Amino acid sequence: MSKQFFSVQYESTTTRARLGTVTTPHGEIKTPVFMPVGTQATVKTMAPHELYDLGAEIILSNTYHLYLRPGEDLVAEAGGLHQFMNWQRPILTDSGGFQVFSLGPLRKISEEGVEFRSHLDGSKHFISPEKSIQIQMGLGADIIMAFDECAPYPADYEYVKKSKDLTTRWARRCKAAHTREDQALFGIIQGGMYKDLRRESAEELLELDFPGYGIGGLSVGEPKELMYEVLEDLIPVMPKDKPRYLMGVGSPDCLIEGVIRGVDMFDCVWPTRLARHGMAITRKGNLAVRDRPYGRDFRPIEEGCPCYTCQNFSRAYIRHLIKAKEVLGIRLTTIHNLSFLIRLMHDIRQAIAEERLLEFRDEFLAEYGSGK
Amino acid sequence: MSKQFFSVQYESTTTRARLGTVTTPHGEIKTPVFMPVGTQATVKTMAPHELYDLGAEIILSNTYHLYLRPGEDLVAEAGGLHQFMNWQRPILTDSGGFQVFSLGPLRKISEEGVEFRSHLDGSKHFISPEKSIQIQMGLGADIIMAFDECAPYPADYEYVKKSKDLTTRWARRCKAAHTREDQALFGIIQGGMYKDLRRESAEELLELDFPGYGIGGLSVGEPKELMYEVLEDLIPVMPKDKPRYLMGVGSPDCLIEGVIRGVDMFDCVWPTRLARHGMAITRKGNLAVRDRPYGRDFRPIEEGCPCYTCQNFSRAYIRHLIKAKEVLGIRLTTIHNLSFLIRLMHDIRQAIAEERLLEFRDEFLAEYGSGK
Repeated sequence: MSKQFFSVQYESTTTRARLGTVTTPHGEIKTPVFMPVGTQATVKTMAPHELYDLGAEIILSNTYHLYLRPGEDLVAEAGGLHQFMNWQRPILTDSGGFQVFSLGPLRKISEEGVEFRSHLDGSKHFISPEKSIQIQMGLGADIIMAFDECAPYPADYEYVKKSKDLTTRWARRCKAAHTREDQALFGIIQGGMYKDLRRESAEELLELDFPGYGIGGLSVGEPKELMYEVLEDLIPVMPKDKPRYLMGVGSPDCLIEGVIRGVDMFDCVWPTRLARHGMAITRKGNLAVRDRPYGRDFRPIEEGCPCYTCQNFSRAYIRHLIKAKEVLGIRLTTIHNLSFLIRLMHDIRQAIAEERLLEFRDEFLAEYGSGK
Repeated sequence: MSKQFFSVQYESTTTRARLGTVTTPHGEIKTPVFMPVGTQATVKTMAPHELYDLGAEIILSNTYHLYLRPGEDLVAEAGGLHQFMNWQRPILTDSGGFQVFSLGPLRKISEEGVEFRSHLDGSKHFISPEKSIQIQMGLGADIIMAFDECAPYPADYEYVKKSKDLTTRWARRCKAAHTREDQALFGIIQGGMYKDLRRESAEELLELDFPGYGIGGLSVGEPKELMYEVLEDLIPVMPKDKPRYLMGVGSPDCLIEGVIRGVDMFDCVWPTRLARHGMAITRKGNLAVRDRPYGRDFRPIEEGCPCYTCQNFSRAYIRHLIKAKEVLGIRLTTIHNLSFLIRLMHDIRQAIAEERLLEFRDEFLAEYGSGK
């Protein structure tokens, strides 16, 4: 990878936040950034040009899902994921580790890798660190992730230590297997809620000199305060010149608190999933636009919101569409939710540049509330 | 209604086709025209601006569905259907007659109107001609339809005659009940496959001097040749200075054959429904893009097609989306299908202007086939 993969333009003096740029073969990403999730090579309900219009600079797609369907060989034959789904900006793929881990009784972990049964048809599969990298090289994302084991929460110290050690050994194998120079392979720091294990994990992975680091195994059910504490302890031992990616985090309060603690990248299915449940994100908290009180509410989801949805449609119309099971209802809510988070990241970057991120956090949370 | 509601710009000398313009409070419609159907105040999966981009000049929405949900009073409170769904071009609403008729055992027809049970919750309702007009005035479409009884196919002469007579009496009541001067109320000619009843129906309705006429009760299961025969016999008795609207017809072959016989307006759920079944319309016939042979087919649905879908995505990607139950798959197929029919109507208008519609028909059908 080029030395210019990540550059920091500004470091906050009042928080650990920084403004950076990630440079990939498909363009630049301004950090801190939120990455919408396109699990099956599509951000649910959205067309690529709509995501461009919202200002999405990078999306995430899931190795586990694409491996099962349509298969990385088919995607490679199409010219890679960018070509297959016609998304011409950067893409990050996860390693499949978290999805396979989430299969519960359907998977069996060994030193070699993970044996699991497909959630689609029950067929048996085996993913090793080498296999995950091979799949991700076939998919061809700009940023790919090492194959890790994500410990559950709660989990005892011994289990998490073994899991962290395994993740380190797998990270070495991933690095050895990775040969595409146009992709940046990130290591993933594990260690659960144990600060010493987190620091050990970080130190072990730093030796491998990855161009960026994921922080895995957070936002898995623990209290948010505990996640913040782990970040506060961990991030100072992470390198300043590499992007830090907090995996699976996307609620507005966690985005702001994460940035304050030094996180550069986030992803989460939350805004798109919320939309499918008829829920919209607003500055005043989340709005159940699917519910009866909005049936005759002819205001937009959020007054003053510049998104296509709020500029053109009412809560009453969106509620009608959702009740009538019309796709456009979820589409419009998805557009609003993604627009909200992408604009929030823009505002966060602005607040960093103006050294008022803590005030921004306080003002935002006073209106939004936290943990909804 | 303004005298300028319908004007004919050109009459073909070789067929009964003509080029016309329908002028409404929400703009002009060039005829012959195909109207996409937005049953529940949305053309399934599509946003209004996408329909504008495709060149859709008018859409149809369904009185029966909107009456049940969200209710015409709510739509009126929103400022009417245009405002509610933010569609700023012309809208036509049907009368609810066909939908209620289609409920089968759930409905009971009397002189007064039709009693039926909602397909949503089984609740009991009654729609009379006056009620249909009242609902349609609440919805506020530019063109509305008289409440009719659509006889099934096959049906014996006596039944169809009674049904046609009832439709005429209902048409009188509709006209008496209609008071909005910004809406054009069309009568609907019935009479099944009986040419004398069709002519009687037309003559009776012509006395009421509607600004346009629907042709109902065709495309209800009869052979296409029979439909064409009925049209050939009926259309010469319809006025030349009023638009002729063949209801519920939308396959490419029927559109061309209908125009040749003098039809100006068409609507059908076919292109959008076909898309939901993973089927795409192409010049060479319909393509089951959902099927396995297209899994590794990296060509667009139709080579040379200028639509957003064909300019940006492959059959393989669309098939993947459809198999993965991703909304974008249906969206992209819907865009292509509507684009195909709207461009077909454009080509038909061009062929009329150049007096080569019959040649156009022969060339088109030689490639497309008929009746698929």
